[in-house]
This record gives sequence, C-alpha cells and structure tokens, in this order.
Amino acid sequence: MTEYRPVTAHVVERLQNILGARNVSCDADKLLTYSRDEVQGPFWKDGCLAEVVVFPESTEDVAALVRLAGEERIPLTARGAGTGLSGGAVPARRGIVVSFEKMNRIIELDRENLTLTVEPGVVTAEINRAAVDAGLLYAGDPCSGDASFIGGNVAENAGGNKVVKYGPTGSHVLALEAVMADGSVTWFGGKRRKDVTGYDFVHLLVGSEGTLALITKIVLKLLPLPAEVVDLLVPFPDVASAVAFVPRIVTEGKVLPASIEFMDRRSINLTERFLNTNLPYSDAGAHLIIQLEGNDAESLADEYERIGDLCLAHGALEVFVADNRNSRDKLWKARKSITESVWAFHPGKNVNEDVVVPTGAVPELMRRLDEIVTRAGSAYVVFGHIGDGNMHVTAAPAPEEPDRESILHRIQDELYDVVKSLGGTLTGEHGVGLKRRDAITRFLDATQIDLIRRVKLAFDPQNILNPDKIVPWE
Amino acid sequence: MTEYRPVTAHVVERLQNILGARNVSCDADKLLTYSRDEVQGPFWKDGCLAEVVVFPESTEDVAALVRLAGEERIPLTARGAGTGLSGGAVPARRGIVVSFEKMNRIIELDRENLTLTVEPGVVTAEINRAAVDAGLLYAGDPCSGDASFIGGNVAENAGGNKVVKYGPTGSHVLALEAVMADGSVTWFGGKRRKDVTGYDFVHLLVGSEGTLALITKIVLKLLPLPAEVVDLLVPFPDVASAVAFVPRIVTEGKVLPASIEFMDRRSINLTERFLNTNLPYSDAGAHLIIQLEGNDAESLADEYERIGDLCLAHGALEVFVADNRNSRDKLWKARKSITESVWAFHPGKNVNEDVVVPTGAVPELMRRLDEIVTRAGSAYVVFGHIGDGNMHVTAAPAPEEPDRESILHRIQDELYDVVKSLGGTLTGEHGVGLKRRDAITRFLDATQIDLIRRVKLAFDPQNILNPDKIVPWE
Repeated sequence: MTEYRPVTAHVVERLQNILGARNVSCDADKLLTYSRDEVQGPFWKDGCLAEVVVFPESTEDVAALVRLAGEERIPLTARGAGTGLSGGAVPARRGIVVSFEKMNRIIELDRENLTLTVEPGVVTAEINRAAVDAGLLYAGDPCSGDASFIGGNVAENAGGNKVVKYGPTGSHVLALEAVMADGSVTWFGGKRRKDVTGYDFVHLLVGSEGTLALITKIVLKLLPLPAEVVDLLVPFPDVASAVAFVPRIVTEGKVLPASIEFMDRRSINLTERFLNTNLPYSDAGAHLIIQLEGNDAESLADEYERIGDLCLAHGALEVFVADNRNSRDKLWKARKSITESVWAFHPGKNVNEDVVVPTGAVPELMRRLDEIVTRAGSAYVVFGHIGDGNMHVTAAPAPEEPDRESILHRIQDELYDVVKSLGGTLTGEHGVGLKRRDAITRFLDATQIDLIRRVKLAFDPQNILNPDKIVPWE
Repeated sequence: MTEYRPVTAHVVERLQNILGARNVSCDADKLLTYSRDEVQGPFWKDGCLAEVVVFPESTEDVAALVRLAGEERIPLTARGAGTGLSGGAVPARRGIVVSFEKMNRIIELDRENLTLTVEPGVVTAEINRAAVDAGLLYAGDPCSGDASFIGGNVAENAGGNKVVKYGPTGSHVLALEAVMADGSVTWFGGKRRKDVTGYDFVHLLVGSEGTLALITKIVLKLLPLPAEVVDLLVPFPDVASAVAFVPRIVTEGKVLPASIEFMDRRSINLTERFLNTNLPYSDAGAHLIIQLEGNDAESLADEYERIGDLCLAHGALEVFVADNRNSRDKLWKARKSITESVWAFHPGKNVNEDVVVPTGAVPELMRRLDEIVTRAGSAYVVFGHIGDGNMHVTAAPAPEEPDRESILHRIQDELYDVVKSLGGTLTGEHGVGLKRRDAITRFLDATQIDLIRRVKLAFDPQNILNPDKIVPWE
C-alpha cells in the first residue's frame, strides 16, 4: 500500500503561496463538505476526510500544486460540483481536495468549428444554454445537469438522457488540456474531428475519474440544433409491456430517438409527491418518455404519430404529446427529480445501482430484479435510460426491518450475478469510484484489473492522483 | 533498443505444431508479400522482412503463438488485408507476421441488440452487406472497404466517407476480444451501449495499430438503415469557392450530411482516366459530394433541394442529384478510385499525406498548400473528407526532376508546419505506423511521446507486439 505524507502546516503555507490564502481552506465544515458527494450514507466515508481544500484559478495554479503534491507525496483528489454518485471525488487517502469551482469560464464558442472550449468548473446546464443561444446543440444531458460541472461529467463519462442518439459525454469531447502527475501541462486532441496521431488518450482520460491526470480545459463538439423537438409520455399497464415495447421503436419505428426513458409506478409516485405535482395516468404500471427531433415540423409530426400508433398497438394506455416548452419542461423536471425524490422518501442506506445490460436483455433483467427484491422482502424503485439498457435500481427495505444491511447485501449480490449473466456490467454512467471499487472484480477479470493498475502507474508513477479508486489497491 | 531473437528452425517447428504446417509459411515470395502494405516505395521497407508468416484459425491459435513469441522474445506483427497506408502492418523488427485472413467469420448478427460480432479477417464491405441484408446500417465506410479487413479498420481507427455524421470506426466498436502480450485472452466491453466500469480500454485498443494486443473478435454497433439516400455531386469553378461553401451546409443548411467529400480537378481527371469514364463538369475546379439520408422521401427531397439551392447561391456551377443505385455507385466508384488512380499515373515515391485540420481552417490550408507546392515546382492532387477537415495530399514532382527527393522533403516539411499552426495534426485516418513514426514528434510533445511508450510497455512489457511503431523507440 502506497505511503503518503500528511498535509503539514508547512505544506498549507506553500499552498497559500501558490494559490493565495483565499484559495486554501482548512476550515472543518468545508473539509467535511468537500469530502462528500451524493452517495447516500456509505460506511467508507468517515475515514475519507480532506486535510485541505484548494481552489485553483488557472492551469498554472493546478500545475504548481500538482508539483508540490508530487514532491511531498500527498494525494490529490479533483472535485467538480460534488453531484457524483460513486464517491469518485471523495478523498480516499485524505490529502488535498482540488475544487474546480473557480475555474468556471466559458472560454470560447467557435461557430466556425462548432466547438465550445470551457474550464472544468462550468455548470453543465450553462453549456447547454450557451450552445442553444448560438443556435447549436451540446448533446450532453445528465439528470444532474443543473448542478453538475462539465469537468465531473468528463471525469465520470456521464451519460444522461440523450445517449441513445448522441452517446455519453465522451462522444462530445474533442480535446483536453491536462496537468499530468509530474506537473507538466499538455493538450490531448484538438478542434479536429478525427485524429489517429498516437493513442487515443482523450478518451482514456474521459471516465478515468481523476486518476490519470487533472483536466484543466475541455473542447466540446457542438451539433446543429434540431429545429423541432417533441416528447411523448406513454403510460403502459405494467412494467413488462413497457419494457417489451422499447426495441420496437428502433426496429419497427425505424427511428433513433434522442431519448428513451423508463419510470416505474413507484418512481412516478415519488416524484409527484416530491414536486407536489400530478402526472397523467400516474397509477399506470410504468411510463416511457420518447423524445423525437427533426428540422421539419410536418415530418416530425408524421414520425411521432407513427410511433404513437405503434405504442397504442402494443399495449400503451395513452400517448401524451409534449410539444411546447412548458409541457416538456414539466415532464423532464419530473424525470430528473426521481433520484432526489427517492432520497427524500427513502433516506439512509439503500442499494442504489447503475447497472447496464444489452438492451435486448432488459426484459429479463426486470423480471429477475422483481424476483430478487420481492424474495428479499424489500420495496424497490426502478427507472432509467432504458434505451441504452442502463437501469437505476434502488432497493429500500422498510426502515423498521432489523436485518436491513444483510437484505441489501443479498439483493446486490444476486442482482450482480444476474447482470453479469445477461452480458451486462456494474456501472453504465455513475462510475466506479470508491462505491464500486471492490465489486469491480466480479465484472472484470484479473488481466483487466491488473492492466488498470499498470496504466494508472504509467500516468502517475507516484500514485498521487485520486489514489485507491476504481480497483482494489491493497 | 530492445533485442529480439531470430526465428530459428526450432521456432518454425513449434509454430507448425501449434497451427498446423499449412498455416506457417517461410516461402520467400510470401514473406515479401506479407511484409508490405500499400505505402508506395518508402526507403524503410527493405529491412522489414518477415521471417515467418502464420495464419491462425482461432483465438486459441493466436494465444498460443503469442505465448511462444513471448517465451522466445520474437516480434509479432498483426496484419489485415495489407491495404494500410502507414506501414502499420510492416514488420519493423522482422519476426512473425500474423495474418488474420483465415479468421474471417461473421459470428453473429444480433437483431435484438443491433450488434454484429465478427472475426478480424472479415472484409469491411461484407460487413456493410450483412447489415443491409438485415435492414440495418454498419456506418464504417473506408474507401478501401472492398478489400480491407475490419481488424485493420479497428487497428487503425479507419475513417472514410461517413465520419461527418457517424464518426470513425471506433464509434462503431462496442467490444473487443483480445489476446494480451502474455497470451491471456480477455473481453473488453460488451454488447452494452454504455459502460464506465474501469478505463475505456476498448477505445484505447482502437487505433493502437496492433501495438497493445491482438484483436481476435469485434462486436460492432449497427444502426437503423435510412430508407432514403441521395448524393449530390456539385461542381464549383475553383477550389476556393468549393471549400468556402462547406461550412454553410451545417450552419445555414442545418443538416449534418452523412458525407461531405472534396475532389480537386486533378483528382477527377485521374479517376476518369483510370476508370475510363466521364464525370459531369470534369473541367470544373473542384467537386463536392454531399450525401443526405432520411426515412421520408418527401422531406429528404425538400432537404436536398434546399441544400442544392444553397450550393447554387454560393457559386456552384450545377447540382447533380444521384438518387438511384446506379448513379450513386458510379459516383462513389469514382471517388473511391482516386487513390489508386494517383498511384497508377504518379508511380514511385510521392508525398502522400493524410493531414487533418479544424474544419474552419480548411480554406487556409488549401491556400497555403497551393503556395507551398507551387513554390516547390511540383504538381499535386488533393481530395478527401473535407467535412472532417481530413485532406489527402499527393505531391508529385515531374519524374525527370533531378532533385525529386529534396523537393518532396521540403513540401512535407512546410506542409507540416502549416498544419500544426492551424491546429491540425499529422494523420486523420491512415495511422502513424512506420511511415509517420519520426514525424510524430513534430505534433506531440515529449510528455505525450513518453506516455505512449509507457502505456505500450504497461500492456506489453517485453515489447514484442508490433515493436518500433508510432513513436521513435531508439
């Protein structure tokens, strides 16, 4: 196990000299706040407390503090908005937490090359807005987008609601400025749309959770903004009929929607209570959201009518068309609030999973999930990005249940077996971080686990960048 | 410099025991053939001669021969169809060439998950056909597709004609079965559409030119097949007006075509001569091909009329609409034959470049290119994937020119300076291989060159997989 040195008063002083006193904090409340993300109540959090939090304002700041950490052999953990769901930004081995909140400039919108260059601390929704204001689309759309930073999205390769058509965050990243573990600064990629000059390190850094380098600038790819967007909200009598319908959208409907989302009845009911709102047919067994886009209103109308008819022909109870800003906003607010509403009404420790299976295996996953959780005597909520086979499962045994811990453990254990047997894996978009670090060995073989460690050390020989993450290190 | 052992008679015998005598060849003609790709006449080829060529038939064969090469410390170079344009499959340090031509099965077309699982030796065009036969689209479309193997496309991250809309080969790769340098076999990725379980090694292997592992199976992503496709062939009076028009397709036309290709007059004339055919307006300064797709014939017609009008409003001489199989095939045959026609009429050593710049920088690149080559007193041909900023440049000084070598050198040198100053890079789709190995240090800094070496050795500590490629090693 790598030995690290503590953050001494002398180190704090050196950090203050580099960053200015205003950008270095040892305040106890701040240390606690900046040592947490949105993972609910895990056992591993207590020991993971930052010794100092720093707020660099420039790439030069970051390079200087990485050099200092290297000389002093102190862990450095990069942090975005703290909206992560894997403990990726939690300082597992203490040391320095690097908050990117002050590196929050949109540097350039390049209309000629359809790129947006930003610092990592820009809020995702600001990026979406900046693109729209220029008549363009940034297609990243994580549910946490109103709060998350783009740097965190890149570090975790965040997914979200438009992966079906546009791919995850990594699909939109053309280039990264990075500070390497030795403090050198380099640009991977560029504004060019193709590049095979050497290995694809841009997309190795995407999703590497701050373990390989610190990202200080990001060049994002923008797309033409579709002129017309429409969302269909489609209630089905039960989970099985909703789930069985999904593949027909592509195979029979012959379209690739921007989104295909799934919400079970419990998800709908929780988000209705949380937002104090009503959704149509909220007692239906499950709802799909299908988002369609186009440049031509008429042919989009033809398309959504065709898809709507297909829904009704295969068991949908109704098809609601949200084609104006207001109705679309209401719908997506409900969808995006499910995670928070689950936390609100099922506080404390639960199983919060982010499993992903081949889309064709979703029906079987849902059947087996129901068996597993029912057999364990627990309630559960399931929703997610069904168009990519990525389902968020929260199992929540009754609070008065004496054996909660072991019920949760059993559910997780059996669920992982099923996911693996279906050709799926541990996490589709939330990342491994600390939360799933030990479970990863159930999904990746020894060759791959070892390769992760070796590549990590090729980038970071002293193992100071966000150590002890992704795979077990001890 | 890594020391390797020669292929002795004993090694050949062991190879025969593993693969069967029919799958091991030391025939002099074969050794020569399997030591070359389609790079024309470079100085470095003579020393690069395979000592033995092997034809594995299964993953187990590959694993066994990698183990043998590791024990004996003999270089192993993977080879597809030999259509490469970078010397990627040329055995720089001799040893064993591994031809994948006998691993050529389409293993599974999974209609439910929209995937195609293949061995690396399947010809790309066969994959395109298999998808179309199932009413689906495999969007990879390299110009060499009638001959190239999918394994080579993956190893080089081949681009081609549909990158504008669909991305390069890597965008279509969901999973890879790979034999690692120690002979272990592992699957990276799966049929799932998202995956953040560990680092993205799938897309690190894509484009790694056989230097990190040997790929033995590939899972490709398929898409719904657009019902309607139309190609516009648009002559412009000169290069400048054609090039200046390109960005308007997206910004004013508001569409992302499947293809935007560029051919200068000389490209057109060479391919006409080579194919003994005529293209309309072949004396025009330049042609664009714009491919549009859709599911609805009427709205596609609206779209191509709008784009056609936009062309004519910005200087196009005419807009030819190829909307049937016959006219489309003729057009693409001409486009795809340019490289061969250049070789046919400008044989011998030329500058064959694959530079890529941000799309907005293409007009400046073209102006500077013309200056450079004209100043050097050479002829040149330029064509390529202008929608991605990826231009293929062939400078061909007159054969009787006494100082050809130094003219070519000067053109290349000046072109690289311009490309770099425009934010571009060395190779967009052909790869680095041997051809560009020494030039790469002009485009990547010392940090990145060093990182390529370290990551290579993290995968392949003995440096036996396609050694001496991508970056200088001595």
